[in-house]
Parts: sequence; C-alpha cells; structure tokens
Amino acid sequence: MSPAFPRLGGGNPQLRPDGRLGHLLSIEGLPERILLEILNTAESFLQIGERAVKKTPTLRGKTVVNLFFESSTRTRTTFELAAKRLSADVLNINVATSSHNKGESLLDTIDNLMAMHVDGFVMRHSEAGAAHLVARHVDQDAWVVNAGDGRHAHPTQGLLDVFTILRHKGPVDQLKVAIVGDILHSRVARSQIHALSILGCPDIRVVAPKTLLPAAVEHLGVRVFHDLDEGLEGVDVVTMLRLQQERMEANLLPSSNEYFRQYGLTDKRLERADPDAIVLHPGPMNRGVEIDSVVADGPRAVILPQVTHGLAIRMAVLTSLAGARDRDLHRDHG
Amino acid sequence: MSPAFPRLGGGNPQLRPDGRLGHLLSIEGLPERILLEILNTAESFLQIGERAVKKTPTLRGKTVVNLFFESSTRTRTTFELAAKRLSADVLNINVATSSHNKGESLLDTIDNLMAMHVDGFVMRHSEAGAAHLVARHVDQDAWVVNAGDGRHAHPTQGLLDVFTILRHKGPVDQLKVAIVGDILHSRVARSQIHALSILGCPDIRVVAPKTLLPAAVEHLGVRVFHDLDEGLEGVDVVTMLRLQQERMEANLLPSSNEYFRQYGLTDKRLERADPDAIVLHPGPMNRGVEIDSVVADGPRAVILPQVTHGLAIRMAVLTSLAGARDRDLHRDHG
Amino acid sequence: MSPAFPRLGGGNPQLRPDGRLGHLLSIEGLPERILLEILNTAESFLQIGERAVKKTPTLRGKTVVNLFFESSTRTRTTFELAAKRLSADVLNINVATSSHNKGESLLDTIDNLMAMHVDGFVMRHSEAGAAHLVARHVDQDAWVVNAGDGRHAHPTQGLLDVFTILRHKGPVDQLKVAIVGDILHSRVARSQIHALSILGCPDIRVVAPKTLLPAAVEHLGVRVFHDLDEGLEGVDVVTMLRLQQERMEANLLPSSNEYFRQYGLTDKRLERADPDAIVLHPGPMNRGVEIDSVVADGPRAVILPQVTHGLAIRMAVLTSLAGARDRDLHRDHG
Repeated sequence: MSPAFPRLGGGNPQLRPDGRLGHLLSIEGLPERILLEILNTAESFLQIGERAVKKTPTLRGKTVVNLFFESSTRTRTTFELAAKRLSADVLNINVATSSHNKGESLLDTIDNLMAMHVDGFVMRHSEAGAAHLVARHVDQDAWVVNAGDGRHAHPTQGLLDVFTILRHKGPVDQLKVAIVGDILHSRVARSQIHALSILGCPDIRVVAPKTLLPAAVEHLGVRVFHDLDEGLEGVDVVTMLRLQQERMEANLLPSSNEYFRQYGLTDKRLERADPDAIVLHPGPMNRGVEIDSVVADGPRAVILPQVTHGLAIRMAVLTSLAGARDRDLHRDHG
Repeated sequence: MSPAFPRLGGGNPQLRPDGRLGHLLSIEGLPERILLEILNTAESFLQIGERAVKKTPTLRGKTVVNLFFESSTRTRTTFELAAKRLSADVLNINVATSSHNKGESLLDTIDNLMAMHVDGFVMRHSEAGAAHLVARHVDQDAWVVNAGDGRHAHPTQGLLDVFTILRHKGPVDQLKVAIVGDILHSRVARSQIHALSILGCPDIRVVAPKTLLPAAVEHLGVRVFHDLDEGLEGVDVVTMLRLQQERMEANLLPSSNEYFRQYGLTDKRLERADPDAIVLHPGPMNRGVEIDSVVADGPRAVILPQVTHGLAIRMAVLTSLAGARDRDLHRDHG
Repeated sequence: MSPAFPRLGGGNPQLRPDGRLGHLLSIEGLPERILLEILNTAESFLQIGERAVKKTPTLRGKTVVNLFFESSTRTRTTFELAAKRLSADVLNINVATSSHNKGESLLDTIDNLMAMHVDGFVMRHSEAGAAHLVARHVDQDAWVVNAGDGRHAHPTQGLLDVFTILRHKGPVDQLKVAIVGDILHSRVARSQIHALSILGCPDIRVVAPKTLLPAAVEHLGVRVFHDLDEGLEGVDVVTMLRLQQERMEANLLPSSNEYFRQYGLTDKRLERADPDAIVLHPGPMNRGVEIDSVVADGPRAVILPQVTHGLAIRMAVLTSLAGARDRDLHRDHG
C-alpha cells in the first residue's frame, strides 16, 4: 500500500477535456448537468428490473473489475449485478481477504490489471483519496468508480439518495432535508449533502451529537442541530445514518440504548416532520439503534426503493463511463 | 440472524394456488405429479452435458443468488453450474465467511436482494426452517430452493437419489432400499425417504446404531435395523451416508475404526444384498470409514452418476420454478 | 490430499496419440512445433484486447474450472479473464480457503467435477506433480493446465516469457539470456529455461547465490554465475525472479538489504548488459529487494507487456486444448 495518498482537491480529475464524465470519484465538484444526465439515464434502466429478461447488451465485451480493499458483500453485489445486467464480464478481487498481493503496491496491482485491458475499476478502499490516486494514474486507459474511500465519498450512494428523493418528493429546490447520525465518519452523509447542494436544495440539516460532527461542518452549507426533535421540525426528507458499533467502543457515545433514546427514529419522533415526509437509510440497518422497526417497515420508509434505485444508478454510471471511452475508440480507429 | 424460526408444517408453502411448484423446500408434502415432472425434465437435460456447447438460453436474463449461510463449495458449485448452463446470471453470496452482514437480519438481506429484482434464491442455512421462512416472506416475488437447512431437508439431493435409482433399477414400487449410517443428523436420509415414499417404494430400511437414529423414526414409514448384515439382506439399493467427524467427538460413536467394522460397506458385506444391487453415496466420501474404496470404485457404485444426475435435477428445478413465474409475468403484461 | 504423488518423467502425458496437445503440464518435453503453434495463436489473440468488444465465441458453452489448492488471485484472475473473453463459463474453486473438501481426496474432487462434464481444469497446487497426477487420471475426458505445481513448473509463464522475448528481441537463437535470483525454488525459472532451450537459445545463464541454486543445475544446459556483474555481461535479456520473504527467514540469505546490494537490479548494474537489453519479471515485484524502481518503471522493462502477453498466451492454450477435444467429439458423433 502506498503510505501517503495525495491531498484531495486541486483540479477535478473526474471530468474529461471534452467535459464528459471520465471517472466517478465524488459528487463534490461535479457539474449539475452531469448529475442530471446520470439521473435521467438511471430512469431508463429502472424498468429493466421489471422485465422477464433483465439484460441489455450495453457493456458486452467489457471487463469490469470490482477491486475491494475493504470487504463489502452488499456494495460489491450491487455493482456486480449492475455490470452483469449490462452484459459486462466481471472480475471480483477482494484484496482484503486474498493473500495475493504479497506486499504489491496499489499502483502495481492497477498496472497489472490495465495491462490485461480491463475497462474499468469499481474500487473500495479504507483511505480517503485512494480512488483519486488510481484515477490520476490510469488516465485515459480505464475509468474508475469510487465505491467508498474512507470517510471521504461514496458518490453512487449520494446519487441514489437524490434519485429516490426526486422520485418520491419532486424537485429538491422546494425541500427541507435532515441527515441524522454519525456525520463525522459518514461518506454517505457527505455525498448526499454535495448532491443536494448541487441540485439547489435550500435547507439541509445535520442532526448529531457534538462527538459525531466534523469540525467546521457548516462550511458544507448545512445547518447543525444537536436535538432530534428540533432538527426534524417540518422536514420533507429524513436520512438516518448507520451507527457503527465501533463508535461506542471508542467512547464517542455512551451506549446504543442511550443513542436510540436521543437519536433513534421512532413514529413518535417522526411526527415532528412533514406529514408526507419520507425516510431514507443506506443500509444495513441497526434496528433499535438508529431506527425503530415500526418506521423501517412503515409506509414512509423508502429504504428498499433506495436499493432498487441504487442498481439503476450504478447501471447508468457504468454506461456513461463506458460510453465516453467508446467514443474515443471510434475516434481513434474510425 | 433471526433467533427463532417458525415451526415447520402447517400448510404447504411450496405449492402455488395454481398447483404448480412455487418453491422447492422439502420433498415432504410434494405431490407425486410434481416429482415426476421434475424427474422428466431432468431427463431432457442429461444430454446437454454430452454436447460440445453445454448451454441453453432457458434462464437468460434471470438472476440466481446462491445465498450460503454455511460454506459448501460442492453444493454451491453444482447450483452455480446448473444456473450458468441455463444462461442465468449468478451471484454467489457466502454469508458464512463474508463480513458483510454486520448483524443485518436474514429477512433484511432477502428484502435487499429482492429490491434488486433477483429471480430466485438457492439457500443453505444451518437452521431447519430457514428456507421456509424466506419462502413465506418473498411470496410471489421470487422463488426459493432449499439447498440444505440444518437436519431438515435437502430436496434436490432426494430428487437426484431417486432419479439415479429409477435410471439404474427402474420403478421403485418393486424395490427394497436400505439407508445406512447417521440417520439422526441427515437431511439426505430424510429427503430420500420422503421421495421414495411418495413414489411408492414398499420397503425402505434404515440401518444405524441407536445413537444415530431419531426418536420415533418408524413414523417415517421405514423399518429399523441395527445390524448391517440384516439390513442389507436382499436389498436392491444401498445408500451409505457420510459420517461426520463431529459425531465421534460428541461421543455418539466409539471410533471410526469401530464404526467401519460395524457399519462400513465392504464387498463382503454387500454380498447380503441382491446381486444386482447398486450403491449410492451423497459425497464427499470418507473412504475407510463408511465405505471401502473397493466398493466406492467398484461396478455397483453409482456415486458419480449421482453427481451427473444432480446437475440435471438442479437444472430441471430452476427451469420449473422460473417457468412458473414467467407465466405470471405474461399473464400480468400480456 | 493424496500423500505421495507419482515421480515425474517417464512418458509424456501431455501429448495425445495424434500428436496434438492434450494437457499443458510443463514446457519440458514439449516439441518445438507445439510451442510455435501456441505462440502463433497467442499473436492473433493480442489484438482482441484492443477492441471495444473484447470477446470471441471460441469456448462458448464450455466450462473451465479454476481449481486452486494454493491461493493466487493474480494467476486465477488472468485465467478467469482468458476463459471469459473466450466466452467460457468459469467456476472458481479455492480449496485453500474453502471448507468444502472435508478431507475429500484430490481425485475424488476431480471425479466429481468430471461427472458434471466440465471441460477443463486450470490447477495450482503446492506439490510438484499434482497436475500430472490429475492429467493421467482424467485421460480423454477433460484437459488440464498446470498453473503452478510446487517448484516444478508453470508452463504458461514460460510461454509468455518467450513470447515477450520474441516480440521485443526477435528469434532467441541469437540471444544471451540471464535469469537472476532464487533459481532453487522457482518454477518460473525452470519453465523459462526449458522454453528457451527448445527454441534454440545458445546462451542461458543463471545468476544466484549458492544457497538458491539447485544441485546439478548445469544439467539444464545453463551457465552458472554467482556474481551479478559477470552474469549480466552482454546479455540481451534479464529475467529478475521474485524473492520470497520466507528465504530470509530460513536463513538462506542474510537480509533483503544485503540481497539487493548483491543481486538487486539497478540502472548501474544494467550497464553491463547489452544497451538494448530488456528486463522481465514475473510479478509481483518486491521493489528495492530484487529490482530497483528506476529499472522496473524504466524504458527497458517489459514487465507490463508480459502481463498483456500472458493473457493472450492463456487464451491460446485454452483454445488449443478445447479445439483438440472438440475434434474428438466431431469424430465420435459425425
């Protein structure tokens, strides 16, 4: 592993010279038109899941590598299924559990896979900036999707969140959105905040105890609440974040019971929100910790639609990235 | 993991209102016509393995999830190959070794996969009734194949056993069948007994020491023997069960040497059976524990044909389950 | 696991009665025409990696089993990708980490997979001769590729090495080649030496400390050097071997620093070689142990082209083996 990743920011390595999407690394810095393009493409993929033959030839003959330096069966599965429904070949490489890398550096691993002419990487890594590092390295030869890098970003999650909000509540420029829980460690929160901001959401709130908030969080353009009832007042959308068990162990929180009492979403608590408010959660849920089962399984939860939308978003992202590259090929050879 | 699974029995969740197979959960309770339909379909799939192109488009565009809460490369492999030869996309999810579930409940995992519109689940679990629980939960949205749940059932094994018996010995209503070994812990024994009973086998025997027999085993309609020579007398079919090493450790048995002396199948022992008797074993074999290599590799063993038949049976089951669901789709949309 | 594998040598089980390639087990003993056939076929597969649709239907409907008794994500990945680009179905079975075999013998595992009519095995095993044992066992029913057996052979590596040398330096009968490092434990060295010898390379050198050389290494037709500068004098090709960390632990070597000082390839050291010399490494590299990054990333390294060529070689080998078997099928049925 490369010991030090480059500082983030400074240029936008995910846009190509022609203005199209070259890599998907973070929502931050994406122009609104790119977001809208992905959201529109996802719309058209939604219906494929309803068909008897859930398959399109869009990525036939392409190779997508799921390169996971952190285990995550759930995320790997959605990307694998998205790629297979697009007819791509998929290689799953789980560096977390495999003995293969034998000290090989991240970039040597990438170079090797590129030498086999794979088309793209879906990459999860525990360190912020890992996907950026790879994207800078591969340049025009392949595309990179960040499937989560440390606390930094998880852009397809942010896209599926706003896709879900748009489909259930309409344009976000009229909405109040609250994100509740462990903002400090959450790439989910960060990605959703950026996506909502770009699309013009005027009222984004984060609700969390002080120990679970990043310093200077207001710079992200959000309002900060420490009290759940206040934060939920009149909102149209509530996103509950997963509470990692490790936070308790690190004494950032007293106990999961106490957390539930203060920040757990119950039907009672939800009464503060707009009567038509929807509830999101990135999964997997800790029932009884950050969310009560009555809410999780209730009529206002859109947690399973998020999963459905996540598949469509990932198909749209893969299609968009592969499409831009094919255009190059045709230009070079045509 | 859900701590308590529902009691088995009470209704037959594997049949659909139209009488077709909706899920394959256990042989118990299946009508004979369903068994015969699967066995006939399997017959037609047998020859695909002989071709240069071992592939049919039957399940093209379908997604089959191998959801294994217990590791079993062997069973997973046969289902994976069956699905791939039918042109389905396969997702392998090994919950036993993956770190992914992070305490997520079984039904939340299922809901997530269903939200991605997967078509069916092939499921192995250490607790009896787990597949029933999932089948009740998914209802019409997907189908479930039980690939082994605790000591309860392993229906495709039962089907491949009778398929093998039918092909080598003809109709079972003329046959004497002995099942030898650890009946107590064996879903294989249970599934074969049910399949033989439904097809009208008049003489089913179980041969085991008292410590490896379930209470009230006679209720299954079998005759009990504790002596191998007596049990094998004149039988047409001998099924040897695998002896789990754990049984010795739990002091249910003295030693594997002693077990072999009393219950191991040798050529000598086999003389008690009919001269044309065949020998089955579900694999993997413990040579020298429950079966002697001379028998295992001898002319009366049909252990490798069982494997071949198992693939055809699994292709038939997947085809049958997917076919019933496609009919619904056409009715809804047509 | 079978405790004792048969002695190697004695007959050439990789050739079929019709003289075509039946299995690929080792370079040793292959006729030159077989090597040339594979190298020529690989040439035609090279350009597939450049296309937008990287796929040919050559192995459609075939099943290739990656049967790994030693973990190796890198080697498994290249074979998996080669098979998928040829449109084969691939089953990955990692016996090293799976709990499945439960003491089942190697040949029982093979028999089971053959009973499912798989077409071929790509096999890695820690014991020399394991692939030969399986090839003798399967006979005409399936083909076997040795993807590394102990210290013995890794024939596709040898083929990709000579393929790379031929493409960058032309015919080997005019070349001087040095192989540097742990010759003793290296199936890579052994396979490359045999391939070069068969193709008529007149000057093959091995450079290593005495502790990392096999006894009677001269019988392989090589010249032995203990001093790197002397060994590199005027060579056209340098192959650097990976140094396994275990060698230091076994006190075969003083330290990795000391090893680098004596046998590590630096720009300075490379000045002894021909000015147009190329540098090979089988990967993964230990930068700063056997090779300096300046060389590894420099203009004379052909380490990434080796990876590209390795994919083409593996596609060629699978095509050749499957092709010979299909001819049988047509003869039998036509």
